[in-house]
Amino acid sequence: MSQDGGLLAPVRAGTRAEAITSDAAWLRAMLEAEAALARAQARLGLISSEAAAAIDRTARTLVLDPAELARRSRQSASPVVPLVADLRRAAPGTAEHVHRGATSQDILDSAAMLVATRAVRAIVGDLSAIMRDLAELAERHRDTVMAARTLGQQAVPTTFGLKAAQWLAGLMRARARLRDLRLPAQLGGAAGTLAAIEDRAPGLAPALVEVYAEELGLAAPLAPWHAERSPVTDLGAALVGTARALGKPATDIVLMAQTEVGEVAESSAGGSSAMPQKRNPALSVLIRSAALQVPAYTQVLGQVGEHERAAGAWQAEWLPLREALRLTGGAAETGAELVAGLRVFPGRMRANAGLTGGRLVAERLYAHLDKEALARVLGEDDAGVRQDLLDPGAYLGAARELVDRILATYREQ
Amino acid sequence: MSQDGGLLAPVRAGTRAEAITSDAAWLRAMLEAEAALARAQARLGLISSEAAAAIDRTARTLVLDPAELARRSRQSASPVVPLVADLRRAAPGTAEHVHRGATSQDILDSAAMLVATRAVRAIVGDLSAIMRDLAELAERHRDTVMAARTLGQQAVPTTFGLKAAQWLAGLMRARARLRDLRLPAQLGGAAGTLAAIEDRAPGLAPALVEVYAEELGLAAPLAPWHAERSPVTDLGAALVGTARALGKPATDIVLMAQTEVGEVAESSAGGSSAMPQKRNPALSVLIRSAALQVPAYTQVLGQVGEHERAAGAWQAEWLPLREALRLTGGAAETGAELVAGLRVFPGRMRANAGLTGGRLVAERLYAHLDKEALARVLGEDDAGVRQDLLDPGAYLGAARELVDRILATYREQ
Amino acid sequence: MSQDGGLLAPVRAGTRAEAITSDAAWLRAMLEAEAALARAQARLGLISSEAAAAIDRTARTLVLDPAELARRSRQSASPVVPLVADLRRAAPGTAEHVHRGATSQDILDSAAMLVATRAVRAIVGDLSAIMRDLAELAERHRDTVMAARTLGQQAVPTTFGLKAAQWLAGLMRARARLRDLRLPAQLGGAAGTLAAIEDRAPGLAPALVEVYAEELGLAAPLAPWHAERSPVTDLGAALVGTARALGKPATDIVLMAQTEVGEVAESSAGGSSAMPQKRNPALSVLIRSAALQVPAYTQVLGQVGEHERAAGAWQAEWLPLREALRLTGGAAETGAELVAGLRVFPGRMRANAGLTGGRLVAERLYAHLDKEALARVLGEDDAGVRQDLLDPGAYLGAARELVDRILATYREQ
Amino acid sequence: MSQDGGLLAPVRAGTRAEAITSDAAWLRAMLEAEAALARAQARLGLISSEAAAAIDRTARTLVLDPAELARRSRQSASPVVPLVADLRRAAPGTAEHVHRGATSQDILDSAAMLVATRAVRAIVGDLSAIMRDLAELAERHRDTVMAARTLGQQAVPTTFGLKAAQWLAGLMRARARLRDLRLPAQLGGAAGTLAAIEDRAPGLAPALVEVYAEELGLAAPLAPWHAERSPVTDLGAALVGTARALGKPATDIVLMAQTEVGEVAESSAGGSSAMPQKRNPALSVLIRSAALQVPAYTQVLGQVGEHERAAGAWQAEWLPLREALRLTGGAAETGAELVAGLRVFPGRMRANAGLTGGRLVAERLYAHLDKEALARVLGEDDAGVRQDLLDPGAYLGAARELVDRILATYREQ
Repeated sequence: MSQDGGLLAPVRAGTRAEAITSDAAWLRAMLEAEAALARAQARLGLISSEAAAAIDRTARTLVLDPAELARRSRQSASPVVPLVADLRRAAPGTAEHVHRGATSQDILDSAAMLVATRAVRAIVGDLSAIMRDLAELAERHRDTVMAARTLGQQAVPTTFGLKAAQWLAGLMRARARLRDLRLPAQLGGAAGTLAAIEDRAPGLAPALVEVYAEELGLAAPLAPWHAERSPVTDLGAALVGTARALGKPATDIVLMAQTEVGEVAESSAGGSSAMPQKRNPALSVLIRSAALQVPAYTQVLGQVGEHERAAGAWQAEWLPLREALRLTGGAAETGAELVAGLRVFPGRMRANAGLTGGRLVAERLYAHLDKEALARVLGEDDAGVRQDLLDPGAYLGAARELVDRILATYREQ
Repeated sequence: MSQDGGLLAPVRAGTRAEAITSDAAWLRAMLEAEAALARAQARLGLISSEAAAAIDRTARTLVLDPAELARRSRQSASPVVPLVADLRRAAPGTAEHVHRGATSQDILDSAAMLVATRAVRAIVGDLSAIMRDLAELAERHRDTVMAARTLGQQAVPTTFGLKAAQWLAGLMRARARLRDLRLPAQLGGAAGTLAAIEDRAPGLAPALVEVYAEELGLAAPLAPWHAERSPVTDLGAALVGTARALGKPATDIVLMAQTEVGEVAESSAGGSSAMPQKRNPALSVLIRSAALQVPAYTQVLGQVGEHERAAGAWQAEWLPLREALRLTGGAAETGAELVAGLRVFPGRMRANAGLTGGRLVAERLYAHLDKEALARVLGEDDAGVRQDLLDPGAYLGAARELVDRILATYREQ
Repeated sequence: MSQDGGLLAPVRAGTRAEAITSDAAWLRAMLEAEAALARAQARLGLISSEAAAAIDRTARTLVLDPAELARRSRQSASPVVPLVADLRRAAPGTAEHVHRGATSQDILDSAAMLVATRAVRAIVGDLSAIMRDLAELAERHRDTVMAARTLGQQAVPTTFGLKAAQWLAGLMRARARLRDLRLPAQLGGAAGTLAAIEDRAPGLAPALVEVYAEELGLAAPLAPWHAERSPVTDLGAALVGTARALGKPATDIVLMAQTEVGEVAESSAGGSSAMPQKRNPALSVLIRSAALQVPAYTQVLGQVGEHERAAGAWQAEWLPLREALRLTGGAAETGAELVAGLRVFPGRMRANAGLTGGRLVAERLYAHLDKEALARVLGEDDAGVRQDLLDPGAYLGAARELVDRILATYREQ
Repeated sequence: MSQDGGLLAPVRAGTRAEAITSDAAWLRAMLEAEAALARAQARLGLISSEAAAAIDRTARTLVLDPAELARRSRQSASPVVPLVADLRRAAPGTAEHVHRGATSQDILDSAAMLVATRAVRAIVGDLSAIMRDLAELAERHRDTVMAARTLGQQAVPTTFGLKAAQWLAGLMRARARLRDLRLPAQLGGAAGTLAAIEDRAPGLAPALVEVYAEELGLAAPLAPWHAERSPVTDLGAALVGTARALGKPATDIVLMAQTEVGEVAESSAGGSSAMPQKRNPALSVLIRSAALQVPAYTQVLGQVGEHERAAGAWQAEWLPLREALRLTGGAAETGAELVAGLRVFPGRMRANAGLTGGRLVAERLYAHLDKEALARVLGEDDAGVRQDLLDPGAYLGAARELVDRILATYREQ
């Protein structure tokens, strides 16, 4: 058996994104594209509404074995070729109306955009849930002082509220990019000239593209994009942005959950096969595993191809696009679980912030003390220094303002 | 000597993009950021206008040796640390006002956005020139019939006008993405809390960020983006899109210029060191060399970093960002030269389209002929077939409409 | 249903590589690793041979649902944790002996190396078949003159024999790299110290590692490589090399099969959904689709992780390693089919080589003629020029020698 | 001015690797290749020894402006074309003997291998210095107990000696890979057939390749590798391996140097522009910046090109190859500085290992205690538990054996 689920990708195992992007779902989307094409042609009078209805009905009910179809697709380098053959066979009397005027890439690209639309919708839903929780964390911890860290070193004081708000800001940007996507249908015919449609119905091709896109619930493209892959690369960029925006809190949580730091913990911290007592930040690790993969996969998208349709660059896109969608989707679903259950330990944050005596507030001390006084403080002998200068929680007004500003922008969206 | 220019990157050698992104230009931009910070503080009354003027004057005139500064930067992993030291030394009496409230990353990120703004402006200029020429080509060759090719094989007829219009469409998308960028200034202080400013001037930090951005001619950010790198990754994605949109005509031109195809030639087709008679599509090759590099460099941008400022991920961005800017810029300048001088051979296009007898129009024949007639035609014996069916120039109305539509959209922009 | 086969990857659909790397096969390999660990412990007297036999028997027969296990693995970020639980449950009385002294990564890494060993073996077999066919092609076409092409332009004459021999040389290098791999077993315990084994049986840990590796048929490592990933990156580099060595003939074949060139064809040239007459180089396109993906996937391998075992970098490796193995395997199997059926048209090769009159041999003319004579020839007026100078087949002695040398080296391997 | 040094790459600023790979050095290597070609031809009697001597002398003394040459190279997409013109002009009377039988790529590829040979030699030197220091650290800290950490969590005890030994093991592998490289000269003529040489001196071409390689101190290739790029990709893989092997200790040091962990410090811990008291692990950060870039650059190497010489893929290699060489070289030189000055705090290591009471040794407790006793210990109430079980330094015999084994293997090399 050569099937695979998420055994090697727990971050997406059993998630909605996995189901939305399965072979079966992809196949279904291709059949939807064929049905939409038939319905669109009927709406413009290019084929009879009976033929369209028959094709539509068959496309809805046809059950195909993805693995078997995949094997047959090797001959033509496209799964759409055997799919069209099966659809024609299953809808007798409509053969000549099936796939009329289209090329394989029209169907596969449209199906990819359908699948992507659904996956993106699920991702946006999970992001929204995470963002709600982060907004609440930001608000609740607006005054929770902790050490900011740069290059791994405690630097100056900050608040956990600002940290959460910055995570939120990253996700706001990611969600906005996903929502801005206008994923288009693809319809160009054999080489993007729409000639077969023009041949049958002069002047109707542009209208057909519009109606076809409408039937699919996708945007109508300016022109066929067989070899102009910005719809796919824009999608890829949005997914990378999302995976990394999710990877950011996951990375910080792994660091804050370190045994020596102990400022947060995952609610259901994961077990170990060797050390049952150990509490691993398992969800964060899963999310990070996705954030480290998605950028590589999206690199394969949009490589420059030859002429009207590419000999390899396009075919290379299918698999990494699917994986980028479902790893990002898995990371979003996992992220919702992570943030919802995050345990925060303000006491530990404040204790860590006090670890270095006056050094965490040295930036401020520099501004207020002369050299001698400074030397005394950083030499740990803080006798006689104004206590307000040593308070890591002072002068965080700007940090609070940043939290408020990010939250306000979030609420406007 | 360890300096390097474009010896290993002819695509950008001597181009404006190379000058705009040189070490010296980058250094200048860092000094501009320091000067803008001083001016902004003076505008808000945080320092005296005399001090700001002195810093501004010094920053404008200070001459630093990039290589020497680079060596000194190794100690702190940041070129801003020695730069600030030099600036303080050069502007006596202002030392405490230089770099006040800022961290290295504020200056380096702001400088990067300044350099990028200038490079992007140059790129957009070159893209616009290319687009004008492509629009003209698309219009002039609206009826120039040629073979469309898919998977390397002649497929159906198209026009060179549509090919040029599709190149144009790709560049329209790329230019739009570049123009949509809102590159922000960076100002967050030691760890993104703006605390040092708050400490001196409670409540003024948000205003300072606004004024500083205004002084730099950059966008004001929602919040410090030390560890939320979407400004950089959005820029990177726009550059990849541009490099590939330029790589697309370059790739097609290499293929169309093949000895056996001969449909276009570069005006100043390049010589060979071994075969002086050979006419290489040198400019196209240069552009392709950029399009194959830029995606790899941009991958380095925006990797998830730790906490408030990263220990490696940020520092890794500087070099690939610069190279992505100048390779894309070089490709744009080279592209302008390529398209302006492109020689098109419509006769050869038509002759190639006729190479396969009826096979190029087989899609149409299938629609109009019965099996027997079809067999005769594809068997090269086209006796008795209606000549209009064999005309590769027929039924290209939709192709012409696509050209018109792309041109109309282009003219609206 | 969230399973997927090769619908989006026809290059591997139904190939042996797909079966060898399926979720089920990976799961089986993990169970093999657990069984080998038990047998090895029994051989050293650390557990009873009865317990080992029971574990071994259970591991062989235990049937697990990969998708269900995958879902349960989310809690611990590792599929080995639920697998060990199931194995313990299924082999009653042996629970404490199962997985003893090991950590999840020991089992998963060892399983990966087992799966990789099997995939590499299949790949080497396919490469060997391809190489036999290429050697025959090289020999048969040792004197088949054709145009060599550089930067897309006809340059000087070469032979198809040399082209085939160069493809062979690339594959020889790839196969050698695969054969040089010494994939190691992994056994380090919780953090690579082998302490749990040491605790029970002081001094026996090194021997256990040896015996365990032997039981698995893998190499014994110098030390645990939980965080030193060169076994995985060496494998990745060998797979990239193989995918590209296969991509090279595929790319050249797509170019030589262009309608205007016509020098080769795939035996079973693929159909098109829109143009049934069209003969696409489908197998070459499939192979190219793999060659364009594998480098991206292998980039994910071996990213630097934290401390003794990484929080994300390791978990990110599983999926791209599997895909790199099976895409390369699919490409190799497809390549064998491609080369076995390749149709070569020497007449067309010679005709193309003659297309440019004297220009293809201009390099030689430069060496032998004065400027005036040269101008006449390159001006297409070759009256009076010695015919031997114009023969593209002359002076190919060195090319033949290169073929012989490559073939001789091939035969020695 | 468009030159650039290391301003944006402090990791290599002013290092030997930067000088070895500068534009000037690359230009010099091209001239060396031309000179070697002339000398080789003279040794075989193909040109006079006077001509060879004149070319050799001119090549040694000719001073060219890289930036000016780079600009002129745009016309041919190769810097070798103007270089050959200048060399011919500078060595009057030898023009016809300069570059005879060679193509641009022969010279550029050979020059790249020369530059790489020198860079690799410098890198191996630095690695060897680092390895000596690590071996000493491993030996000195063979018994220094610390917490091993997996997924960021304290897991079980280990020793700092084993940590250092594992860093050493990674570098041993990297150095071995660099030493195994056999970088070849390139000589194939216009399209890899050596025809121009064959034309003048039938049968001598193979000998010429050998002698030319010998003159350059490079390996003689099996055949021209214009389009079979494994010499470059093998080099790239070795550089990635090295960069990551250097990145591993750098990453661990950043983590161990965290304020809350404090187990090591860099001797010359770097200052901050905002917080002068802060001690940043600057060298580690620089090394990490290189380790995060090199893999991306090497991805550009060895992309499949067209026919006998590629139209873009080859030209794209020059810049990233140079950068991979000098970033890795800079990281190695920086690594030597880092390791030589590393300060280790065993007291802090032991204190951290004791932070969690019995939990760090829970793996062992599980093996030795019943559930009740276990619960008491992990509940922090370790009354009555045998103290030997709670000693984190016990049962580290296997760890010590691993250190000894790695050191023994190191000493054998």
